[in-house]
Amino acid sequence: MTYELNEKVKNLIPYDPVAGDYEIRLDANESFIDPGKLFREDFLAAVAAVDFNRYPDPAATELRKKFGAFYGVDPENVVAGNGSDELITVILGAFLRPGDKLLSFSPDFSMYQFYGEVYEKTNIVAEKQEDLILTAGDVIDAVRKNRPNAVLLSNPCSPTSLVMSREDVLHIVENTSALIILDEAYMDFSDQSIMKVAEKYDNLILLKTCSKALGVAAIRLGFAVSCPKIIRALNCVRSPYNVNAITQAIGTVLFSKPEYIRKSVEEIKKSRTYLYENIKKLANSPGVRSLIKPETNFVFLELDHAEFVYNELRKNSIIVRKLGDYLRITAGTQKENDRLIQALGEILTRKI
Amino acid sequence: MTYELNEKVKNLIPYDPVAGDYEIRLDANESFIDPGKLFREDFLAAVAAVDFNRYPDPAATELRKKFGAFYGVDPENVVAGNGSDELITVILGAFLRPGDKLLSFSPDFSMYQFYGEVYEKTNIVAEKQEDLILTAGDVIDAVRKNRPNAVLLSNPCSPTSLVMSREDVLHIVENTSALIILDEAYMDFSDQSIMKVAEKYDNLILLKTCSKALGVAAIRLGFAVSCPKIIRALNCVRSPYNVNAITQAIGTVLFSKPEYIRKSVEEIKKSRTYLYENIKKLANSPGVRSLIKPETNFVFLELDHAEFVYNELRKNSIIVRKLGDYLRITAGTQKENDRLIQALGEILTRKI
Repeated sequence: MTYELNEKVKNLIPYDPVAGDYEIRLDANESFIDPGKLFREDFLAAVAAVDFNRYPDPAATELRKKFGAFYGVDPENVVAGNGSDELITVILGAFLRPGDKLLSFSPDFSMYQFYGEVYEKTNIVAEKQEDLILTAGDVIDAVRKNRPNAVLLSNPCSPTSLVMSREDVLHIVENTSALIILDEAYMDFSDQSIMKVAEKYDNLILLKTCSKALGVAAIRLGFAVSCPKIIRALNCVRSPYNVNAITQAIGTVLFSKPEYIRKSVEEIKKSRTYLYENIKKLANSPGVRSLIKPETNFVFLELDHAEFVYNELRKNSIIVRKLGDYLRITAGTQKENDRLIQALGEILTRKI
Repeated sequence: MTYELNEKVKNLIPYDPVAGDYEIRLDANESFIDPGKLFREDFLAAVAAVDFNRYPDPAATELRKKFGAFYGVDPENVVAGNGSDELITVILGAFLRPGDKLLSFSPDFSMYQFYGEVYEKTNIVAEKQEDLILTAGDVIDAVRKNRPNAVLLSNPCSPTSLVMSREDVLHIVENTSALIILDEAYMDFSDQSIMKVAEKYDNLILLKTCSKALGVAAIRLGFAVSCPKIIRALNCVRSPYNVNAITQAIGTVLFSKPEYIRKSVEEIKKSRTYLYENIKKLANSPGVRSLIKPETNFVFLELDHAEFVYNELRKNSIIVRKLGDYLRITAGTQKENDRLIQALGEILTRKI
């Protein structure tokens, strides 16, 4: 007898991480600051205190307390996850029924549609305008037209690097009964967060990650902030021990260092501004179509020959992210930025 | 406008972990040996080497290599997960379609039905015979009768502590085209594993956890072993960075210490035999209905007044797991076992 994979998974193409070693990695929007180096002793002490043979605290109590204190939200309205990825899969899997409509926008974080497909939702994808700006009106129009059960979007947006204003986002949340899943992964680099009022809405789940501003992509830590009704349900459907004890311990150390987080954010913002300003100087080079002023830790650059430039950068041992005609370039250290800017300038000039 | 939770999640009851501090915790089938104490320096060195600001290796390459070497399987046929829990949710979510039939047995690990429900499968639960023994015939009969798309079962079984023979399991796998999801979480304590031949079957996914014999429940590490076709699909549907870098690093250290694993397994088996033999001496006490010779790291004891005994043990600061008329008691240290045996003896005598 033969077992057949279902049609959905049979023809999927495996995720293909960037292979090879590069001297300069500006592809994954990671932080260039490693808190594991800064707080080595604190991290190791936290790890040493873990009872490895025991299951982790299922409620991640200490961690949520510190997270709440840092961001000014009630820890009772917070759930921790194994990265935002896990929280998205749990929300799509449990809060939406099979075939329910999930509205997302393009371009936005590519995994939204992927998870929608895997977890049997009906993906509805609304294309953004040519300027990539998404307005509250655009979202509400798409909601009225498509009547989705849920809307999933990032703000600020990866990859566009644009932010929607707090007022616009609240206008969306207040004018639909669809579940709004709002990914504020990059909001530490901007100033339009609605996290502090998230608990007031019964149709909003706000997601945060520690992989960007916090600088701990390695530990896979994300959070959901929502109203008590949704938080209760989320706690019912997630795996009881979803966040391992070490991630909890290290996250707790990090959120006890608000001055580190604020300083990191400032340094990263300075770096992205430097990167933006210097790439802007190349904006008149032939082949450069557009460059967006970023509200994130990366810049988004439109080119005539993105593929060519991408490959040339690789030859210089610099890896960035190519998305169609765009390059998404993470803000790095001064040295990394300078190497990137220099190489990019050379490539664009050579192309003439 | 009001957002309404769907019926499925609206009335769920949140997972309620055992609250309170107990001197002796024999409730979660954890190992009583903490490798974090034994290999403190190795663990800390592995953690210190992690680049915290970078995403983990999405393929968990080193970890799978060590796992494969220890268990004698090809690392290419292995996927790592954030505990078996994550792997189960991914398999149910992606490999089964909504409404597909998931056959499980009762009693078995309670989360199987839970995940089936959350991920919109049709749970079919076949009751085991009164002696709790599950035969290949029982499984095949249930498959023929119910025509499930997948069968999910543990071997050895938690909570019954019984093992099915290798031949019986292979007979099941070979005589159905349903997907067999076989949870060998406790197989290190028995000797009927089919892991080495798992890759030969196109309808089998074998699950392993590091929370039991390996003694690292804290890090949430599980594995799936299967044929190339299924492994490829599993790699497509899991989150790309599902296993964090620290869990990978510590898992890699552990599987580099085969002598530790083998010695731990021997110590734990000795403890469970001691526990079993001594509880057996109480088997003629009034109120003791049955006791199973265990193939796991716990014993399963049927009582007339399980609730009463459970609560009396709690008063002695000993926590075990109560499941209906049964107590599931994890094998602990010599001291913990002796405290449990003494307290249990007293309670059963007092009950007369």
